[in-house]
Amino acid sequence: MNIILASTSTLFGGEYLEYLKEELIQLYKGIDEIIFIPFARPGGISYDDYTAIANSFFKTINIKVKGLHEFENKKEAIDNAKAYFTGGGNTFLLVKTLHDEELMYVLKHNIESGKPYLGCSAGSNIGGRNMKTTNDMPIVYPSSFDCMELVPFNINPHYLDQNPNLKHNGETRETRIKEFLTQNDIKVVGLREGNWIRRVGNRITVEGSEWTRIFEPGNEPYEINEGSEL
Amino acid sequence: MNIILASTSTLFGGEYLEYLKEELIQLYKGIDEIIFIPFARPGGISYDDYTAIANSFFKTINIKVKGLHEFENKKEAIDNAKAYFTGGGNTFLLVKTLHDEELMYVLKHNIESGKPYLGCSAGSNIGGRNMKTTNDMPIVYPSSFDCMELVPFNINPHYLDQNPNLKHNGETRETRIKEFLTQNDIKVVGLREGNWIRRVGNRITVEGSEWTRIFEPGNEPYEINEGSEL
Repeated sequence: MNIILASTSTLFGGEYLEYLKEELIQLYKGIDEIIFIPFARPGGISYDDYTAIANSFFKTINIKVKGLHEFENKKEAIDNAKAYFTGGGNTFLLVKTLHDEELMYVLKHNIESGKPYLGCSAGSNIGGRNMKTTNDMPIVYPSSFDCMELVPFNINPHYLDQNPNLKHNGETRETRIKEFLTQNDIKVVGLREGNWIRRVGNRITVEGSEWTRIFEPGNEPYEINEGSEL
Repeated sequence: MNIILASTSTLFGGEYLEYLKEELIQLYKGIDEIIFIPFARPGGISYDDYTAIANSFFKTINIKVKGLHEFENKKEAIDNAKAYFTGGGNTFLLVKTLHDEELMYVLKHNIESGKPYLGCSAGSNIGGRNMKTTNDMPIVYPSSFDCMELVPFNINPHYLDQNPNLKHNGETRETRIKEFLTQNDIKVVGLREGNWIRRVGNRITVEGSEWTRIFEPGNEPYEINEGSEL
């Protein structure tokens, strides 16, 4: 496999995908066209508008972007594609659409055969075992929470440390993930913004400028640094 | 109906349910025993421990608390009870358990017949039309997102305004609710901590010290103040 699962598409104050540019040139080496999966629709943006945003970045590295929604036969489009990018947004909407159109496992098999894949945020969630560690609001009801399992754990993108100045009693992210662990025997990678998971063949590492917080059933959470194997 | 749906059980720096004490004395007037529904299990706490926390408050207003989990026949226990309280925690866990044990509509019918109900946080989410505006992590997969519809809208508890100082690209609460509105034709009440919804008969008002933010399909969000009818 040859994949990147990133916490976010955009760093605070940065441009779309800019901080990943050098990595993406490596990921998609030799490829001149990718399929963009726009189903997560952040803020309800249209598929066309979302695809145009992806295109505005990829043209800077000479890669053409086609939206998956543009194809009549989407399974065939996935099978024929050379590489993929799934953008962020609402994970429930993304997973529901992929299951309803029976595309989740078509995509999985193509990525497992070695075609490059980039996921950001919701697009990274679907690279995990299931979507049960998303931060998103359940605005639609998917037929299943199962995902592609491109890595043998779950991802919590946009991982956020507790803000000691916040006078608020909603659960912290850490509390939420610990609640997940009471119900699931699955490791969770708390991926701070600026970090990404890189899988090349069977080697899975965490990359980026921040430490990464690991949650495992039965253990206290701990931190690993850039380049650590997962 | 005679219900309170509160944003939170506990104000920042306050004691459990303390800020609602006078309201709860009114809500449960003439009642000496209630059933507590502990299924949301915040932080994975046991049903017994969670029920003990509820009890520690209710004994200060001379009300006995029995955990629903203590009963062999839970449907019968609900039918026989005089009043209810559902505590906060994980809404997915709460809704899954209520549907799996076929208790959601038994509870609904009893509350609709006039028995007092208090919900906090997840316990308020289940008073709405469905749980699609919860903030919680989908740690388990419920058989349905449908809830009791004690009020003709959805609730977003712990409603939180954007923090302009946060250098983070995760979605704001407002963005999440607007995404919900792209997929659902249902009003959402953004209930800040300190506020609650009060329904007496057919009159539904918002109460508490904060303004309340209302999200409706096709309209810009707007604010209403204490005592406004919903």
